[in-house]
Amino acid sequence: MLNGYTIGDYLLDRLAQIGIRHLFGVPGDYNLQFLDCVINHKQIAWVGCANELNAAYAADGYARCKPAAALLTTFGVGELSAINGIAGSYAEYVPVIHIAFAPNLLAQRKGELLHHSLGDGDFGHFLRMAAEVTAACAALTVANATVEIDRVVGEALRLHRPVYLLLPLDVAAAATENRPYPLPIAEPACSDASLQAFIAAATAMLGTANSVSLLADFLAERFGAAGALQRWLDHTPFPHSTLLMGKSTLNEQHPCFTGTYAGSASDENIRSLIEDADAIVCVGVRFADTITAGFSQHIPVEKSIDIQPFAARVGHKTFSNIPMLAAIEVLEKITSTLSSRWQHPAIAPPALLASNEKDTLDQRGFWRQIQGFLRPGDIIVAEQGTACFGSASLRLPQDCLFIVQSLWASIGYTLPAAFGAQMAAPARRVVLLIGDGSFQLSAQELGSIIRYDLQIAIFVLNNQGYTVERAIHGPQQRYNDIAAWNWTQLPAALGGDRDNILARQINSPSQLAETLDEINRRPLLALIEVVLPKMDVPDLLQAISQSLERRNSAH
Amino acid sequence: MLNGYTIGDYLLDRLAQIGIRHLFGVPGDYNLQFLDCVINHKQIAWVGCANELNAAYAADGYARCKPAAALLTTFGVGELSAINGIAGSYAEYVPVIHIAFAPNLLAQRKGELLHHSLGDGDFGHFLRMAAEVTAACAALTVANATVEIDRVVGEALRLHRPVYLLLPLDVAAAATENRPYPLPIAEPACSDASLQAFIAAATAMLGTANSVSLLADFLAERFGAAGALQRWLDHTPFPHSTLLMGKSTLNEQHPCFTGTYAGSASDENIRSLIEDADAIVCVGVRFADTITAGFSQHIPVEKSIDIQPFAARVGHKTFSNIPMLAAIEVLEKITSTLSSRWQHPAIAPPALLASNEKDTLDQRGFWRQIQGFLRPGDIIVAEQGTACFGSASLRLPQDCLFIVQSLWASIGYTLPAAFGAQMAAPARRVVLLIGDGSFQLSAQELGSIIRYDLQIAIFVLNNQGYTVERAIHGPQQRYNDIAAWNWTQLPAALGGDRDNILARQINSPSQLAETLDEINRRPLLALIEVVLPKMDVPDLLQAISQSLERRNSAH
Repeated sequence: MLNGYTIGDYLLDRLAQIGIRHLFGVPGDYNLQFLDCVINHKQIAWVGCANELNAAYAADGYARCKPAAALLTTFGVGELSAINGIAGSYAEYVPVIHIAFAPNLLAQRKGELLHHSLGDGDFGHFLRMAAEVTAACAALTVANATVEIDRVVGEALRLHRPVYLLLPLDVAAAATENRPYPLPIAEPACSDASLQAFIAAATAMLGTANSVSLLADFLAERFGAAGALQRWLDHTPFPHSTLLMGKSTLNEQHPCFTGTYAGSASDENIRSLIEDADAIVCVGVRFADTITAGFSQHIPVEKSIDIQPFAARVGHKTFSNIPMLAAIEVLEKITSTLSSRWQHPAIAPPALLASNEKDTLDQRGFWRQIQGFLRPGDIIVAEQGTACFGSASLRLPQDCLFIVQSLWASIGYTLPAAFGAQMAAPARRVVLLIGDGSFQLSAQELGSIIRYDLQIAIFVLNNQGYTVERAIHGPQQRYNDIAAWNWTQLPAALGGDRDNILARQINSPSQLAETLDEINRRPLLALIEVVLPKMDVPDLLQAISQSLERRNSAH
Repeated sequence: MLNGYTIGDYLLDRLAQIGIRHLFGVPGDYNLQFLDCVINHKQIAWVGCANELNAAYAADGYARCKPAAALLTTFGVGELSAINGIAGSYAEYVPVIHIAFAPNLLAQRKGELLHHSLGDGDFGHFLRMAAEVTAACAALTVANATVEIDRVVGEALRLHRPVYLLLPLDVAAAATENRPYPLPIAEPACSDASLQAFIAAATAMLGTANSVSLLADFLAERFGAAGALQRWLDHTPFPHSTLLMGKSTLNEQHPCFTGTYAGSASDENIRSLIEDADAIVCVGVRFADTITAGFSQHIPVEKSIDIQPFAARVGHKTFSNIPMLAAIEVLEKITSTLSSRWQHPAIAPPALLASNEKDTLDQRGFWRQIQGFLRPGDIIVAEQGTACFGSASLRLPQDCLFIVQSLWASIGYTLPAAFGAQMAAPARRVVLLIGDGSFQLSAQELGSIIRYDLQIAIFVLNNQGYTVERAIHGPQQRYNDIAAWNWTQLPAALGGDRDNILARQINSPSQLAETLDEINRRPLLALIEVVLPKMDVPDLLQAISQSLERRNSAH
């Protein structure tokens, strides 16, 4: 490896230059030599994970807190283990740069019968698979490497989606004279004619509306529009809301923030404030089945303005080549002259319901206490299932970040994602809310959290199995049962026998209150097993799961 | 679901008809209704796993003990989590039938924004990915389902490779009048002209050879030729050997069985007995890098006969359309008239080396004790790494089955594979040999082993990290370190607090001897942590890893 400055160095410097400080992954014999470069790199730290799927999830969590993330795997076995995580990043617009190390190019060209290959001499299978779930791919050679690295990394940033680099180990070790000068990211195209037409159409619609509401979702956050959107809303008194995937995009303490919108499963006051307005502005919204109770939203095309990352629509007219930020800026101008028409009183958010039980803990009692536990700036990571649908009812303090994966909805995502988020934001508190069924899928990453001595507050909602599935179908069927773990013993088994680790089972409201106090008093890694009734589900989950079951049965 | 006999029922009956008795997988909302059919099925039992990759590994282990295995996942998230396991089954010729449930066909055709999709309205991504790593795929509809199920299942059995069925939940629930009558599996084509030419060529080569050796590998076992091969060898005194992937294909107690052949990394006596013969017959052999110390075998084309599943070669002449069993049968006839020329004395197998240490346990001491522990009929599952290269030196008792994954070499494979093998063969003892680094990748499946109350003897070779990688590159680098788990606490944490579970750490030869005795005395699930020196590696691994590092550095 005495080649001086190599293509591997270039790649690491490029990652550092765009703001990446950690590389997640698992070693494999094709990437070991490159790992020497990683260990020696001054800005990029190696983060070894227990397996590759978890590493991909961790990278996804990291990329939700940083400009992007990087993932290192080995050929075949490693990259395919990670590919479900990459597909999730693709579905949910998260820029993860996946670097898969491959055998030497000469060995590939000879079609050798190498380990981690399918044994058929074809080394292109896995790149073709990656191409289905990434925004850009490249098979690197010495001749194309630096150009292709820049193209592919640039696409990750421009499109906010994962990309894939297949890097043969001899290519990584080859010398290059190129250096990673700052990467120009192409600004999204903006057509002035299109923008003028959009302004005319939006002015016509808003100018005749006696009431306006706004719905924001995750793409507003992903494409960097949350700040501009909030500034607009801060002096424009629309009732506004987010869908579950976009929770934390807007300031939930704002007097006109209504709470989470979920189509017909919304609190009736929220539904009416959003849907019954004369004009509805949607920013970065995609109406997926799980966050709309099966497409039960009622947002008529003719009275809505839809702002997407690179285009917009007003009523039935669409306008291409309008970047999201440009659209928000002109809407802000239009409404600044009209907003006196829409004075709206402060909205009383739906109160968290009181528990039915005094002495035993149930979902309602749990979420009321979690509401009081949250602090400004927290990162809340909520697993798809009871955890995220329960979280939907929380009113987040300011500057919180809410991480959820409701479209891809791969259970097991959140434990590694919380790990990645904490690596990205060491100064913030990460609160993980996860079910017992989901935890088992990726449980070994608790060992990494312990190994890196991170202080995450983990709440395992133990309702004895896949409660979200029970709510949809088969409440008493044994396929929704799981192995019964002794949760409080898990941290010690995975290496966590230090005194800054708290593992506790909670059975009553008072135990929960004491424990939350304790976590707030001193920095700890906490694994809190919250024993909840098996069939007790948050109200929103009940509504949504019934709609999913109806749709699954409609044949 | 009151459709009477459905396509889902047909599929389950078809699986039962070909000898499958268990369905491995993880529930998801698209497959829950089908799971009701599974639970009600009289011959197929549901085996819930902790995650989908582990379920795929378990199915692979099961299929190595049965005619085939079946795996059930849900769309997108589930099937992609499993796909690395399926790719391993493809590389290593293991018939796993992967059933991925998909949303209703109508919802797919409308391109709805459904959870577990990429959100782009294209429901074909994952089938195209599966097609890269399976022998046959089908997207089932009501019109094609029973025909395509039969075609795809038939291909799995004919080619001994995994296949993929994309099954929309409404298709599974639709009625069918077809019934799964016994499935005719096409016999491999046999050309009489080709066979006669093969006989002539083989007779010419063998008739002039003063010595003959035979090398068998995994494809002989996969294509059902192990029995015929053994019968031939039982009355034909060739020195014979297997490569590591084919270990247990031949009776290792036979006086002419030499031990494991590994190219230049072989014991010198084995190498010479195999390579220096005048003619070398290879049956079902694929020379992969990891089992030949980087292609160091010396088996010249001009003096070898190569028998593959559907074709054969003698010297430089190839013969198509000759099934493996037909080739073995004619070779047996040819040699029966010649074998008196090749009388060969019984071969002294290479002795297991004595330990260097008296009081501390090292690799040599460990393997000598394991040799004494094994019993006829055991299923030995050995992880890629120190475990499998150490196992290579074992002389297996009769009727053992050795499971290893040396070509695909996906670490973490063996714990779930041992689970699957034990489900397939409840009357046999399963012995798992696995490293601490590998165990962490799929550790949660220990919870399933506990839940199903299986008695597996698990030896965790704790050498503090990825020793196989250290042997290749970076012996002291921290990327080869892993989280330090407290192994003996793991079974209890994962639910195993019964008295038929033994968890123990072993630090000395005498402790190991006592523990092995205890396991032999009563049925137990044993998790035995064997503390071994960090840099102590079996001799074969040393030779092989050095060759891999040389090849990785050759640029």
